[in-house]
Amino acid sequence: MGALTGTAALSERTRAKGEDGSTGERDPSNAVMFIFDGMGPTQVTGSRYLKAYRDDPDQFPLNADPAEAGLNLDRHSSHGTMTTFPADPNEVVVDSAAGATSPGAIDCAAGATGIGAGVKTYNGAIGGIREDDEFVPVETILEAARDAGLATGLVTTTRITHATPAAFAAHVPHRSMEDEIARQYIEETEVDVLLGGGKDYFDPDERDDGADLLGAAEERGYEIVETAGDLSGVEAAPVLGLFTDDSHLDYHIDRQRVGGTQPGLVEMTEKALELLSECEAGFFLMVEAGRVDHCGHKNEPAILDEQLEGDEAVGSVLDFARDDSTLPTTVVTTADHECGGLSLARDGIYNVDYEMVDRLTASVTEGINPAIEEEVEDVEDLDRVMREVGGFELAELDRNHPEGDLYRSIDLGPFYSGMPVIRDLLNRKVLLGFTSHGHTGVDVPLYADGPNAEFFNTARDNTDIADVVADALGLV
Amino acid sequence: MGALTGTAALSERTRAKGEDGSTGERDPSNAVMFIFDGMGPTQVTGSRYLKAYRDDPDQFPLNADPAEAGLNLDRHSSHGTMTTFPADPNEVVVDSAAGATSPGAIDCAAGATGIGAGVKTYNGAIGGIREDDEFVPVETILEAARDAGLATGLVTTTRITHATPAAFAAHVPHRSMEDEIARQYIEETEVDVLLGGGKDYFDPDERDDGADLLGAAEERGYEIVETAGDLSGVEAAPVLGLFTDDSHLDYHIDRQRVGGTQPGLVEMTEKALELLSECEAGFFLMVEAGRVDHCGHKNEPAILDEQLEGDEAVGSVLDFARDDSTLPTTVVTTADHECGGLSLARDGIYNVDYEMVDRLTASVTEGINPAIEEEVEDVEDLDRVMREVGGFELAELDRNHPEGDLYRSIDLGPFYSGMPVIRDLLNRKVLLGFTSHGHTGVDVPLYADGPNAEFFNTARDNTDIADVVADALGLV
Repeated sequence: MGALTGTAALSERTRAKGEDGSTGERDPSNAVMFIFDGMGPTQVTGSRYLKAYRDDPDQFPLNADPAEAGLNLDRHSSHGTMTTFPADPNEVVVDSAAGATSPGAIDCAAGATGIGAGVKTYNGAIGGIREDDEFVPVETILEAARDAGLATGLVTTTRITHATPAAFAAHVPHRSMEDEIARQYIEETEVDVLLGGGKDYFDPDERDDGADLLGAAEERGYEIVETAGDLSGVEAAPVLGLFTDDSHLDYHIDRQRVGGTQPGLVEMTEKALELLSECEAGFFLMVEAGRVDHCGHKNEPAILDEQLEGDEAVGSVLDFARDDSTLPTTVVTTADHECGGLSLARDGIYNVDYEMVDRLTASVTEGINPAIEEEVEDVEDLDRVMREVGGFELAELDRNHPEGDLYRSIDLGPFYSGMPVIRDLLNRKVLLGFTSHGHTGVDVPLYADGPNAEFFNTARDNTDIADVVADALGLV
Repeated sequence: MGALTGTAALSERTRAKGEDGSTGERDPSNAVMFIFDGMGPTQVTGSRYLKAYRDDPDQFPLNADPAEAGLNLDRHSSHGTMTTFPADPNEVVVDSAAGATSPGAIDCAAGATGIGAGVKTYNGAIGGIREDDEFVPVETILEAARDAGLATGLVTTTRITHATPAAFAAHVPHRSMEDEIARQYIEETEVDVLLGGGKDYFDPDERDDGADLLGAAEERGYEIVETAGDLSGVEAAPVLGLFTDDSHLDYHIDRQRVGGTQPGLVEMTEKALELLSECEAGFFLMVEAGRVDHCGHKNEPAILDEQLEGDEAVGSVLDFARDDSTLPTTVVTTADHECGGLSLARDGIYNVDYEMVDRLTASVTEGINPAIEEEVEDVEDLDRVMREVGGFELAELDRNHPEGDLYRSIDLGPFYSGMPVIRDLLNRKVLLGFTSHGHTGVDVPLYADGPNAEFFNTARDNTDIADVVADALGLV
């Protein structure tokens, strides 16, 4: 693993920056930007009810009063909302043309602001804007922090090369250029803490260009870890944690069922805070609960559980900022956009079945469906998989619903053709509604704590975020 | 009309209360509680984009930055969210069993708190709770204000006897008892300003019991007005404005098209503020944008226009509170629940067609559909009605959409059987999504301004509202 300890590396960087005077101009401080990809207001409310149900089903829903069983999100001192529209003319919903920019607007905006300019960018752009049809890189807040001698980190449940983290530490015209994003992380931006999925993008055997970014990282002193166990033993940055080969980390609900070696978002976040807080000048950390968005795209019933894992990690951040940190720490928590058009209740029925939401033990799209593909030959198999993997019985799904097409596709097999059916029946049963498999335009929740938090106590635009955080860090 | 001037009546009441010492215990102050029935976060965002589009389509959507073309809602000094679940075990969405409690939770909670107790009530209850299967009335904040010598008012775009206003000034086990609610307004609670629809509930020729509440009101000094013109001439409370016979006021979009004699919510709100501010002890006013909820229930494309009328009235309230009032004025603006499961964008498409939303000139359910029933004999008629009443062409609706059933019902007539079709096609065209014809459980927006506003800067429950407003008024 890395020859240099991270502390030494950080100190070296800090010293270097100190020599040219840049650290002398600011008081040491930290900032954490926490992004829930795809979180709208309903994702927040829905997870608060789930938390209250898990805390005490007998007192439910009266214990969902935020004063009783609030979310960690509720603990922020400032609550506001944020508009998310892209720069594209006449479009009010952040677009993902060519599959781009699931987490685009805020991140690209964060980059595109150039720490203060506050400009929108086009969907798909990573750390840059378009001028005269040319891609023009702009400095990101992470880079500005690094240049001022602060430690920097990116933590996510997606591939580490995915759009949200990338927009803080890379510059490419399109988010699909993940090989290049990985190269920039290691060879150019030199992010101190990188934790997420996607080892393949660093691996010479998997990259198109055969570049050995794992070796390059080791040469630069990075400790490379691939399991939760190894991560817990890391004592100093820089660290490169790659906990999957080519994909995202599993959904929280599936990690809980399967066990395995992937760390959770809470563990990754707490380790990042521990390592980065060694830097005397302070740090900038971006944490992403990256797969709430995927749940929205897939209309996945596990969405509220996935949101709750993010909320728990927010709790770790706020505990650090308020209790553990020796430096003032600004926390800004928000989302890039809503995804799925989620509603609590649907079809004219005035409830959500939290008993059943709580009982689920697998996601449909990544837990139940693969099990069906592997194991199911007949209806008895299907019922067994539902019970053993999913935590419910096939009979609980209303197979007599008038929308007969759904049911016929179960009966006719092959069973995997019924996969959307299971999901749709389950959503109908638990009463989660969705209007889309894409993003929607509702203003997203915006929370802040610590220095400059008061700015976020109202309705803001996503271009407002980066410069206010930069100001809190003394970078502007 | 009324033999006594309202000022005299108010003064008389204030003097009477002053004699028993109750007004001497507080500093004069005002409070306005503004309730958007059925407003979730998406209704707010959607109306902000519509406002920005109307302000300047060429700059749209960049001018939707709240700092550029914000809503009046955005002007409140405090922004938070509010949980809305009812007391019913295991239910997280405010129920309307037996058609009750569209605006139930907050209003009944406002009543049920007994100015400080902070208890939930059952769906359908007006100004009371259930104990041992008995309906037990509780004092409302409006009554507490009245008893302290403050002037009181209720303004709404629904029938004045509808659940939201009723829960502030009446006590009945079920919201359907509108004749009794009307009686209590006049004979018991003696609300100084009552503006809304529903003259029939006061009219001896229309009431089941034949009671002449119009006469009773006149005896008590009320000026009774039935048109916007007459309302504008009212110079003093008490006033009873009843601008429809048995129904709600028309949707804003239909009022704009038709003209007619109904006042708008802005006119009613401004008149109420003018009259109530004559009371030296201060006033309590509840204003309801009551039909955003109906738009949600009906999945009505005019929902964003209806929301915007409420926002304009909020502007009048904030202008009064900040600039015109001689007394400190607390404003709390919120909703009882979301309705419709509204989303901006749907079906995987990343936009809302604001050009077309802005161009609409009628609601579907109360403007276009009645015109179809009256006028349409063939497809040419239908196209003409769309253009002349609705502001768009039939050809703009995607009649080739794969869901063929929708289209067949247009072709087969009678045309009124196609009414849900027009609405559904129009929503699909403009890209407004709905998951329900009922309420949903998302936390609603919560805003406040003036004394005690800082309490509302976070996540609260609906039972928290009444006592904080009562505290601001010096009633507790």
